[in-house]
Amino acid sequence: MVKVGVVGGTGYTGVELLRLLAQHPQCELTAITSRGEAGLPVADMFPSLRGRVSLAFSDPAKADLEHCDVVFFATPNGIAMQQAQRLLDAGVRVIDLAADFRIKDVAEWSKWYGMEHAAPALVAEAVYGLPEMNRESIRGARLVANPGCYPTAVQLGFMPLVEAGLVDTTGLIADAKSGVSGAGRKAEVHTLFSEASDNFKAYGVAGHRHLPEIRQGVSLMAGKPVGLTFVPHLTPLIRGIHATLYARITREADFQALFEERYRNEPFVDVLPAKSHPETRSVRASNWCRIALHRPQGGDTLVVLSVIDNLVKGAAGQAVQNMNIMFDLPESMGLTQIPILP
Amino acid sequence: MVKVGVVGGTGYTGVELLRLLAQHPQCELTAITSRGEAGLPVADMFPSLRGRVSLAFSDPAKADLEHCDVVFFATPNGIAMQQAQRLLDAGVRVIDLAADFRIKDVAEWSKWYGMEHAAPALVAEAVYGLPEMNRESIRGARLVANPGCYPTAVQLGFMPLVEAGLVDTTGLIADAKSGVSGAGRKAEVHTLFSEASDNFKAYGVAGHRHLPEIRQGVSLMAGKPVGLTFVPHLTPLIRGIHATLYARITREADFQALFEERYRNEPFVDVLPAKSHPETRSVRASNWCRIALHRPQGGDTLVVLSVIDNLVKGAAGQAVQNMNIMFDLPESMGLTQIPILP
Amino acid sequence: MVKVGVVGGTGYTGVELLRLLAQHPQCELTAITSRGEAGLPVADMFPSLRGRVSLAFSDPAKADLEHCDVVFFATPNGIAMQQAQRLLDAGVRVIDLAADFRIKDVAEWSKWYGMEHAAPALVAEAVYGLPEMNRESIRGARLVANPGCYPTAVQLGFMPLVEAGLVDTTGLIADAKSGVSGAGRKAEVHTLFSEASDNFKAYGVAGHRHLPEIRQGVSLMAGKPVGLTFVPHLTPLIRGIHATLYARITREADFQALFEERYRNEPFVDVLPAKSHPETRSVRASNWCRIALHRPQGGDTLVVLSVIDNLVKGAAGQAVQNMNIMFDLPESMGLTQIPILP
Amino acid sequence: MVKVGVVGGTGYTGVELLRLLAQHPQCELTAITSRGEAGLPVADMFPSLRGRVSLAFSDPAKADLEHCDVVFFATPNGIAMQQAQRLLDAGVRVIDLAADFRIKDVAEWSKWYGMEHAAPALVAEAVYGLPEMNRESIRGARLVANPGCYPTAVQLGFMPLVEAGLVDTTGLIADAKSGVSGAGRKAEVHTLFSEASDNFKAYGVAGHRHLPEIRQGVSLMAGKPVGLTFVPHLTPLIRGIHATLYARITREADFQALFEERYRNEPFVDVLPAKSHPETRSVRASNWCRIALHRPQGGDTLVVLSVIDNLVKGAAGQAVQNMNIMFDLPESMGLTQIPILP
Repeated sequence: MVKVGVVGGTGYTGVELLRLLAQHPQCELTAITSRGEAGLPVADMFPSLRGRVSLAFSDPAKADLEHCDVVFFATPNGIAMQQAQRLLDAGVRVIDLAADFRIKDVAEWSKWYGMEHAAPALVAEAVYGLPEMNRESIRGARLVANPGCYPTAVQLGFMPLVEAGLVDTTGLIADAKSGVSGAGRKAEVHTLFSEASDNFKAYGVAGHRHLPEIRQGVSLMAGKPVGLTFVPHLTPLIRGIHATLYARITREADFQALFEERYRNEPFVDVLPAKSHPETRSVRASNWCRIALHRPQGGDTLVVLSVIDNLVKGAAGQAVQNMNIMFDLPESMGLTQIPILP
Repeated sequence: MVKVGVVGGTGYTGVELLRLLAQHPQCELTAITSRGEAGLPVADMFPSLRGRVSLAFSDPAKADLEHCDVVFFATPNGIAMQQAQRLLDAGVRVIDLAADFRIKDVAEWSKWYGMEHAAPALVAEAVYGLPEMNRESIRGARLVANPGCYPTAVQLGFMPLVEAGLVDTTGLIADAKSGVSGAGRKAEVHTLFSEASDNFKAYGVAGHRHLPEIRQGVSLMAGKPVGLTFVPHLTPLIRGIHATLYARITREADFQALFEERYRNEPFVDVLPAKSHPETRSVRASNWCRIALHRPQGGDTLVVLSVIDNLVKGAAGQAVQNMNIMFDLPESMGLTQIPILP
Repeated sequence: MVKVGVVGGTGYTGVELLRLLAQHPQCELTAITSRGEAGLPVADMFPSLRGRVSLAFSDPAKADLEHCDVVFFATPNGIAMQQAQRLLDAGVRVIDLAADFRIKDVAEWSKWYGMEHAAPALVAEAVYGLPEMNRESIRGARLVANPGCYPTAVQLGFMPLVEAGLVDTTGLIADAKSGVSGAGRKAEVHTLFSEASDNFKAYGVAGHRHLPEIRQGVSLMAGKPVGLTFVPHLTPLIRGIHATLYARITREADFQALFEERYRNEPFVDVLPAKSHPETRSVRASNWCRIALHRPQGGDTLVVLSVIDNLVKGAAGQAVQNMNIMFDLPESMGLTQIPILP
Repeated sequence: MVKVGVVGGTGYTGVELLRLLAQHPQCELTAITSRGEAGLPVADMFPSLRGRVSLAFSDPAKADLEHCDVVFFATPNGIAMQQAQRLLDAGVRVIDLAADFRIKDVAEWSKWYGMEHAAPALVAEAVYGLPEMNRESIRGARLVANPGCYPTAVQLGFMPLVEAGLVDTTGLIADAKSGVSGAGRKAEVHTLFSEASDNFKAYGVAGHRHLPEIRQGVSLMAGKPVGLTFVPHLTPLIRGIHATLYARITREADFQALFEERYRNEPFVDVLPAKSHPETRSVRASNWCRIALHRPQGGDTLVVLSVIDNLVKGAAGQAVQNMNIMFDLPESMGLTQIPILP
């Protein structure tokens, strides 16, 4: 049994992590911390966990996380970078679901996240936890930077094309749509039901924090810097990301076969038949990424449609997948729930 | 392993049943029939099942259901009553998720369902599959009538009070609200997104088919005919029923203790602390019924709040629970998924 | 032209009031105040008003409201009671959309609203602004207490029955469902999209602030204290209240005719044909209250269904209706927009 | 007074047209036809019109449309082309809200719409009713082809850039998202609430009927054929289209000034300040198109965000705008309602 601790479990990523860990046959959830809610039974905040999670939130200072095998940070940005070193020193492996260790260029990170980095050395060590890209490095990692939700959907959609060098990487376009849970459980006006329901808008067009993360990943695939326009949108669903990706073909190939081949052995990437239209609900509450490929009117532009559940493959599920890899468990363990439809 | 057949799997009850059965450790799904979709892989209609259900719909005439241990009918009303006898004769046990065997008074059934009953003898034999009421009879039943969604939520809410004879049963009120999936997957104007979204209405106030079913059950609890007003409403959520029940007290008691005691050993009824407000999402995609009790202003009226997922405890989940009981499996087997929140 | 000021225009009631006033042919909107947003053009906060409202929010201290003919308070509870006297002294008429002047019993008010009342004398003077009940008093009022949203829907539904003394008033039941905009535009977790969408719950069952207001009004209709159970629910729509009312008949009558007669001359109460099911969207963004009457199974319980838009007839629209009455304008002026469907 | 007839008023475009015409000060609604619903009062089907529209649906054969000044066709594709000539011969002007007269290339039309064209000569005569493009021709037109919803949002977004020749027109991308009412009021499974709610998907990527219409319009702006990828998506809102447009810059300019200048005198196109994010709700139930311009990271890709209400500026509202132009009425008459927010 893997002894697991969770730092910060009061947000959507946290409760989703608890849902998955509580159903994981090889995990023992030993502590979940929250400074603000210490003492409160987790199931009092999230009644969906009644009867399944008996833990109460504990004070971070007293949580004895050093005796865990792995600690997940489901905290706001800027927390894990302050606490990871101490845990690593105690022999605990760390998976950060926030952004602290995702961007290798620390100056770039500081610019986008608006703070100094507290542990630049760990940034260098951290492995970017996208299994489809870095499975082997994840296996031995002490510190995993779990990818962002948009970056997961977008990178998995572009990966086969860019790795194979078949498209123009100077003008990639990622038009992405997210459910509102991606904005977290913080009380804010723009994510109120009466604001976000029956409404659709783009946001962060001038620059979203996931842009440098996507650009870093796609540039690694391409072996050179890429030009990418990323436009996120807020759409009135709770869970789900739909990325619509556009790339101009520079070299012909059997693109459908390419995708199928690239992901043949991936347990959580499902390449649909050509010309399919994946729906976000087809992955709801599951760790799947479903992808479909189009070449409209036989022109020179490829359209890739990529859907994930932002809280699962885009956050907590991928984190558990990374844990499975790190601890030599079957990669799908605890992640085989069938999506909820309707 | 229990060999399972499903008749009619193209509706929401059907796909939910498949989701649960595919994850059930002691079930072998051997056939799923659909006259209209014979030959079509189930996962082509419901991509959420890709990679988990490899069956195709089969022609009912060729499905060899006689070799199953149990057959579920997830069909419109009026189908199971025509086919059950043949299966029972072949030694197959039957669970009907439609209404064919729920009402003991065949004339009453005909009035509400607008057709002659094809198998009145089986109505007499059938066991009403509400485990909290009829567990022992279900155990030995050949034919189980799986309860309706509203009747499940309403009966579980009234049961402790009415069994104990503490409330006036001449003027019970059940104000119930259902998600739209309760109306099924049939193409109809009033359940279109543009009609049902951002809208709320009552329907069937003059008389809904679940009224006689609820009245029959509550009268059985009371040991005498009851007077009940039942008003269903359509509310813009996909899954979920919220029943708000009103009863006037005729004899004082510790009502909270009564509920807790009544359901102490029930695996799927969760009595919340007094004055709680259960949310439908706290049971989303799970087999839980969560109940809370109120006595506003200390007056003589009790308010019971009862929530279920109409497709799980209100349909497919309860059917699996009944199957577990019938086949001496642990009652919760395959039904332990944690609700999806948010 | 009526010179109009609005105190506190940053909430949903405020923006709705602006929408209606900007389209009112006899209103001149002269000031809208907000301490926090002084200087900000209103249309920057609410782009729906671009091109139609050119005012900026002004500092309450500098707004020169004393030169208005009427001032609307679209503020949180407890503000109007501190500022109304000064305006009244200056000859300005006041319509309070909050609760400060709704409850005649000041001690009762203090209990429910958790503060001392700052102007008990004005409570006595204030006219409760339900035109269907108090039209003549409103005409001459200096100070109008605009009703709450639930109280409007519930009182209009009970009014004909209770006035005529045809039902048992010791056990009235009001099961009411509200869209989320009723909770206002304040950032709170429980009204986030990811909490309130695809979810349904009751709240405040132990006691909601609208209970004493409804009880006061219905008791006035009955000429004696009434017993009323009021259960509000949060439902995932933006606008709309649906009240489902239950009353036991004590004396027979032609109830449908009674309703039609009672509301024959009311410009904003529409009695539907018997056995109709009014939808909240049939009044969306309009000042209508639509009501339908049922007597299920011919029993002794009447069911009244009453729908309004909580922001219009339940708040801003009724306030404009009151203004029209107070200033001898046609009662429907500026309120004739057809509901938005779908 | 303009005497108006409506053919086919049972869909969303029809009821929206009725809402607008009933509030139009210079229109007299004389007939609304529906073969299937002849005799039914319109307000019985759409209770939102109770008290405002007293007409009943009439049999098309008996509707005496020849005495109207203008007839709107709010019918499925393929109806207007069979009936327009007769009306035109009688001196009636015609506005078709369907697609019969939108595409000048009749063979292309037949390919996309799957039928022979019944009136090719009228195609040549018809004026494409996008006022921002063809105002003067509309003024004198006998027959107006009212644009599609997507084409309205997309063309208005691209127009200033393409007319001025500042972007590469070989690789334009239009990623568009529509509310579900765009699919109409026909009973179909994929637009059921339980399918379309809490879900997001692309559709018609291989080719949508609005593609040739958009391509025709943008090619006219460019003065040469353009290359355009158009991907429509279904998003869970009732009303609203959000088009996200991508174009690579070929020549520098002050793009914001260009847009402001181009639309300075347009009554229904609102260019927002640079870097704004227009929301669909900011135009809900109104005839506005709001547009914002971005140049992310100062790169060579422009992003244009364009929102409309698909039923108003994308259908019924634009049709009324066209009627106003045709009959020399003020262009905004009857179209000044403020958007409904929240």
